[in-house]
Amino acid sequence: LDDGAELVSVLHDRMRDLLVGVVGGTEGTTAGVIRLRSLAARGLLSYPIVAIKDAVTNQLFESRHGTGQSAMDGIVRATNVLLAGMPIVVAGYGWIGKGIAMRARGLGAQVTVCEVAPVAALEACMDGFRVLPMKDAATEGQVFITATGSACVIGAEHFAVMRDNALVANAGHYDVEIDVAALARSAVARRPVRELVEEFELADGRRIQLFAGGRIVNLAAGEGHPAAIMDMSFAHQCLSVAFLVARAGHLDATVLSVPKEIDQQVAALKLKSLGVRIDELTEEQKRYLATWSDGA
Amino acid sequence: LDDGAELVSVLHDRMRDLLVGVVGGTEGTTAGVIRLRSLAARGLLSYPIVAIKDAVTNQLFESRHGTGQSAMDGIVRATNVLLAGMPIVVAGYGWIGKGIAMRARGLGAQVTVCEVAPVAALEACMDGFRVLPMKDAATEGQVFITATGSACVIGAEHFAVMRDNALVANAGHYDVEIDVAALARSAVARRPVRELVEEFELADGRRIQLFAGGRIVNLAAGEGHPAAIMDMSFAHQCLSVAFLVARAGHLDATVLSVPKEIDQQVAALKLKSLGVRIDELTEEQKRYLATWSDGA
Amino acid sequence: LDDGAELVSVLHDRMRDLLVGVVGGTEGTTAGVIRLRSLAARGLLSYPIVAIKDAVTNQLFESRHGTGQSAMDGIVRATNVLLAGMPIVVAGYGWIGKGIAMRARGLGAQVTVCEVAPVAALEACMDGFRVLPMKDAATEGQVFITATGSACVIGAEHFAVMRDNALVANAGHYDVEIDVAALARSAVARRPVRELVEEFELADGRRIQLFAGGRIVNLAAGEGHPAAIMDMSFAHQCLSVAFLVARAGHLDATVLSVPKEIDQQVAALKLKSLGVRIDELTEEQKRYLATWSDGA
Amino acid sequence: LDDGAELVSVLHDRMRDLLVGVVGGTEGTTAGVIRLRSLAARGLLSYPIVAIKDAVTNQLFESRHGTGQSAMDGIVRATNVLLAGMPIVVAGYGWIGKGIAMRARGLGAQVTVCEVAPVAALEACMDGFRVLPMKDAATEGQVFITATGSACVIGAEHFAVMRDNALVANAGHYDVEIDVAALARSAVARRPVRELVEEFELADGRRIQLFAGGRIVNLAAGEGHPAAIMDMSFAHQCLSVAFLVARAGHLDATVLSVPKEIDQQVAALKLKSLGVRIDELTEEQKRYLATWSDGA
Repeated sequence: LDDGAELVSVLHDRMRDLLVGVVGGTEGTTAGVIRLRSLAARGLLSYPIVAIKDAVTNQLFESRHGTGQSAMDGIVRATNVLLAGMPIVVAGYGWIGKGIAMRARGLGAQVTVCEVAPVAALEACMDGFRVLPMKDAATEGQVFITATGSACVIGAEHFAVMRDNALVANAGHYDVEIDVAALARSAVARRPVRELVEEFELADGRRIQLFAGGRIVNLAAGEGHPAAIMDMSFAHQCLSVAFLVARAGHLDATVLSVPKEIDQQVAALKLKSLGVRIDELTEEQKRYLATWSDGA
Repeated sequence: LDDGAELVSVLHDRMRDLLVGVVGGTEGTTAGVIRLRSLAARGLLSYPIVAIKDAVTNQLFESRHGTGQSAMDGIVRATNVLLAGMPIVVAGYGWIGKGIAMRARGLGAQVTVCEVAPVAALEACMDGFRVLPMKDAATEGQVFITATGSACVIGAEHFAVMRDNALVANAGHYDVEIDVAALARSAVARRPVRELVEEFELADGRRIQLFAGGRIVNLAAGEGHPAAIMDMSFAHQCLSVAFLVARAGHLDATVLSVPKEIDQQVAALKLKSLGVRIDELTEEQKRYLATWSDGA
Repeated sequence: LDDGAELVSVLHDRMRDLLVGVVGGTEGTTAGVIRLRSLAARGLLSYPIVAIKDAVTNQLFESRHGTGQSAMDGIVRATNVLLAGMPIVVAGYGWIGKGIAMRARGLGAQVTVCEVAPVAALEACMDGFRVLPMKDAATEGQVFITATGSACVIGAEHFAVMRDNALVANAGHYDVEIDVAALARSAVARRPVRELVEEFELADGRRIQLFAGGRIVNLAAGEGHPAAIMDMSFAHQCLSVAFLVARAGHLDATVLSVPKEIDQQVAALKLKSLGVRIDELTEEQKRYLATWSDGA
Repeated sequence: LDDGAELVSVLHDRMRDLLVGVVGGTEGTTAGVIRLRSLAARGLLSYPIVAIKDAVTNQLFESRHGTGQSAMDGIVRATNVLLAGMPIVVAGYGWIGKGIAMRARGLGAQVTVCEVAPVAALEACMDGFRVLPMKDAATEGQVFITATGSACVIGAEHFAVMRDNALVANAGHYDVEIDVAALARSAVARRPVRELVEEFELADGRRIQLFAGGRIVNLAAGEGHPAAIMDMSFAHQCLSVAFLVARAGHLDATVLSVPKEIDQQVAALKLKSLGVRIDELTEEQKRYLATWSDGA
């Protein structure tokens, strides 16, 4: 059970003798999956690995609802800011960005979204969010949250035009989304103002508040994801291990998706734990669907 | 350019001489795609067909935003009902059901969702909707809208327990989602009450209002999708035809997805028409993303 | 039972002999109430009149939910526009403006609010809407809806900077909120484009779409308020008449508010008709509330 | 400057000699205002007091947005619960209840409202919330938040039917809204489970989680209101003191509302601090409004 392909790296690099007898593995992060895919593409992966992060339920629930809530919660805990009426800029409209934008709006904020991908940008637009290039959004936002998976999404040209006391925070990818080095270079002074919040004073007197040094907000503040989200991730890992063991020796040494059946099973278990009952297809409906798709 | 695989049927059945020289085709409906896949699976399809309905932008925008708005609009036009506070039951939480549930909530309704698939049911639940089996929802709703893709989703056992003056409407699949025959059998009288709305009086005096004889609500009432949705569908068709022509003779006679590039291109054109500008990856970011995914 | 103080005018001006024996009256519009108050202030009103429009339930439900839904419905019926992602400007954040802004957002629009009153402007801001002066909003909106109760809210200086194909509609006060004369003067051509929509072509080629000649949108298109809203207004009138009759001869000839008891009674009847049950104070709670407010 | 009429009590009871020269005062809480009104009604109040809590902006912003955010924040901090999909019961739909219900929904919860007042209950219903008597809601909720201003809103009969692990919290009135004594009596064991959360085990094995011993959630957890809310309260107090001093000796010794001008002034200052500009009435509009209301 790996996060970030750390264990895989050690096993494949320095402790290859332990690779013997390994039936399979699971990987819980997007970053890890990307690295594993690269490893597999070069023919270097020694055993099959299930990419938990790619499970539909993981994206829908952990990335969107889990991070959406915990990122906003982290910001409130660290700053005690009132979100009602607050102009908030969310960079990136993937699952995490969607979750943050949705929750920020649910808390009364005025949300603007920045994107590079046209489909995601259009989706944000039709979801009712204002969509702007970061250069324009930088002048209007008071709180900025990055969740793009890329680097230097907020940099020197943006700090140069932000409002006084703008707060910048990262909910995405390591600590590289905010160009902290550029912020430090443009500052004439820096001081801590609250736990986790550091203030950078610029030459023109404006101040930029940096959250957690650019590290991931919901891990730095608060308690990370609620238990009610992590239970689903752990269920995925547990069921994926069972899947790997049951097929030991019959799977290619590649990165596998979580089987659709496990997604449905995890969702069904979660609904049960919440006391939510759902419908079942009747025999008649099963018959109809089967017949109809045959083109009858 | 086909809707419902009607043209394909005629060409393959009765006018096979016209198949000569056909380079490819497009299909705009889910029903058509299912039939074409069945045809292709049996080796009977004579040319490649692009499934427009499967385009990401088509699902996100036409099914969700287009049908979401036009279905609720159709119901308001046909009934002049006040949606604020109205208990509405949406059967099915696919893209169309998501759109309807979202818009019904946006109009002030109290929305309950029915589903058979655990992942979709859990998604509805975490999106803040009440999730109930139809048997239970039937006693609480005042308006029912089906969008499941299946048959007889609302039937005799549900009519038997509905409130007086419950309205049932279909936004999904042909006219089979509501068991109209069962409703007719249980009625002691039926009369038209408004254009498109027929009232069925049951033996115990309760009345059920049936919308458009169970046919699809946004086609029966109102004007179907807004032009601002259809332009994207037509752009998909146009660009897909160009794609097919450019590859004439080099594609298998199968059902193809809309190429991801066309999805991005359609979204980019739409954003331009809306006057929305977005960010572009910097050279530095492209480099970072390339390097990082290599595991560096 | 009067709307717009029309009946009162005729009675007081031209048919004063009919004033004999009039016990009281009701008035259903804001405009009428303002005129009656002016009449009463000058000592010219001959009998007591209950201002139905001022009832709490009337404002909360008819102005907000009734007009909110029916104004947006009127615009969709008349234009078949897609509201998801649409930049909409609402002028005025009174009860009607609140209703329209809420429903426009619920339908996916990006809503900007214009106001002259600081408290209402701040409320709009904290409700998550962008707040701009009309001069700035004019360049960004695609649909404009006025609900201010004032005149010439959108005028020549705004038409001069609007986007091509901007649509202007009025949901507020008579037909004076949009300066139609100014629009006509600045146009080089005008033509009807859909029922109720007239297009004005400006010298620079831009086109402005005027809805219903500037008359009130939900009365011009659609069917006005849903029956489920009007029933409450009629209940107010009915119960207010009973109130006036019961106190015949004991009320001053002035404009009266709807008694709070009638507001509660109308709401209680409405809840009953919707099948909604609510709590009642226990004896213990009544005792607590009485004792506590005495400062014990 | 008083909170809860504590200072007034001491001055009027034990230190009457200090009453000499007191020009006026302000009171910041609802409880205090109720007590002061009782005092004034009995002719015992010695100087005029401005009721800050009754200011329109105070209710709209502090009670609704301030408490709405901070109550939900307090619950998340204390429990790390996932709000998406959570069935939450809000007792009371005054300004605080409205704020909590709105924020809970904005965070993805499924919200049910309990009320005793028909108008407020109908408002909740038309705002899209389910409305139930507490007896019924008790079986369905997982989190309960009281904001009624009354006592024993949740008591023995409700604990008897709640789900296992239901969480009860109070955001309203002192610590009397939850009948903690009744909960303690029905428990066979109690133990702290997290800071601020105590678990009561009932005879049948179900557990009830009590938040902060029934004390007010946003004061017990978190940091109370955001500074961006308190600044408005303090502005009210400051401007009200200036108002009292300017009229020293010319005001009755009674409880006064915050003058409407101060409400507008505070809102205007707040907008300015947020960088939000608004429209001003033109001379033409002022003239129109003046003329029209004269019935011309």
